[in-house]
Amino acid sequence: MSKLIIPRKTVYRLSLYYRALQRAKANGIDTVSSAALATAAGVKPTQLRKDLTYFGQFGTRGLGYNVAQLSARLTDVLGTTRLQPVILVGAGNLGSALLKYPGFAKEGFEVAAAFDLEPSRQRAKELGVRVLPMTKLTEFLRGNQVKMAILTVPAHVAQEVTNNMIDAGIMAILNFAPIILQVPDHVVVNNVDLAIELENLSYFIQ
Amino acid sequence: MSKLIIPRKTVYRLSLYYRALQRAKANGIDTVSSAALATAAGVKPTQLRKDLTYFGQFGTRGLGYNVAQLSARLTDVLGTTRLQPVILVGAGNLGSALLKYPGFAKEGFEVAAAFDLEPSRQRAKELGVRVLPMTKLTEFLRGNQVKMAILTVPAHVAQEVTNNMIDAGIMAILNFAPIILQVPDHVVVNNVDLAIELENLSYFIQ
Repeated sequence: MSKLIIPRKTVYRLSLYYRALQRAKANGIDTVSSAALATAAGVKPTQLRKDLTYFGQFGTRGLGYNVAQLSARLTDVLGTTRLQPVILVGAGNLGSALLKYPGFAKEGFEVAAAFDLEPSRQRAKELGVRVLPMTKLTEFLRGNQVKMAILTVPAHVAQEVTNNMIDAGIMAILNFAPIILQVPDHVVVNNVDLAIELENLSYFIQ
Repeated sequence: MSKLIIPRKTVYRLSLYYRALQRAKANGIDTVSSAALATAAGVKPTQLRKDLTYFGQFGTRGLGYNVAQLSARLTDVLGTTRLQPVILVGAGNLGSALLKYPGFAKEGFEVAAAFDLEPSRQRAKELGVRVLPMTKLTEFLRGNQVKMAILTVPAHVAQEVTNNMIDAGIMAILNFAPIILQVPDHVVVNNVDLAIELENLSYFIQ
């Protein structure tokens, strides 16, 4: 199968549809109408129908979408059919909290290892994952086929760590450090910046 | 001053410009060109110029933007001129990590209180913030002018907690629970869903 070129915002919405389908499945529902699926995903029905045209015809007029079939197609497109290995760099407060996040494995991601300036066996045991020293980062990445990283280091070291990770093969970064990372074109960065999210809300409540 | 109506995505970018200006200021820079500011914020110069037209003329042709003036205008528009009170609901792993986040006060937000099913004095001391029982949520919100909430409760209670908060006056929610919250039109929700961010990256590394 050739790779589909899907716009970035559509890819986000595919995740929303996938989640809504999982909830439908958990509730024993086999078929959903586009209107019901759109509402459950928090988008407009016209948007949903447009997004799903990337996969050709899927719904049956008057019947709606087959929950199992559409789910399978979405995980296939999203690349989460198999368990995706990911590393976490910076096991401080936020990094540790994320490592305890129960959703990783459930959603198809496996934390292959965490890295920290000061790893300790105690911490590793608490977190249930290997915590390696930063000096082992390059070696680890070269020896393992990991392409995704979660970055939870302080802002002032984030760019340097990023450069090292990219040299060692990382191609996608979920960045929690409050800076704009400079990366080559083949690398994708998604930013989660708490302060920006709050500022954005702040504007809307004035 | 009448309220400007600015599209949601533009408001996000204003935060990026503001951060880039703060870095310029920290480096002793008084004036920046639109090209330099755009690069520092990670957007295209044409986008920056378009976004700033919402405030009328700002730059001086050939000279660029005055860093202090533009910063002041942005905090004014974003509503972060004064310290904004915010509550955090759900002081578990993720909630606790966020409470330890040093950027809150720096960015103009003050955590007025945290709420949890099982508050403890020990926890409150560790976190440096009042941790109140969930049963006090409504009373607290009615007695204090807090309009923003950070929601870090488990998914299965998120909607119920949201309904209670909205009844008590909350108008903006930063939601970390992996569900689509149903809210009335006057309430704004920003979602931070780790699994969705990872899935999105996963698509791009295939």
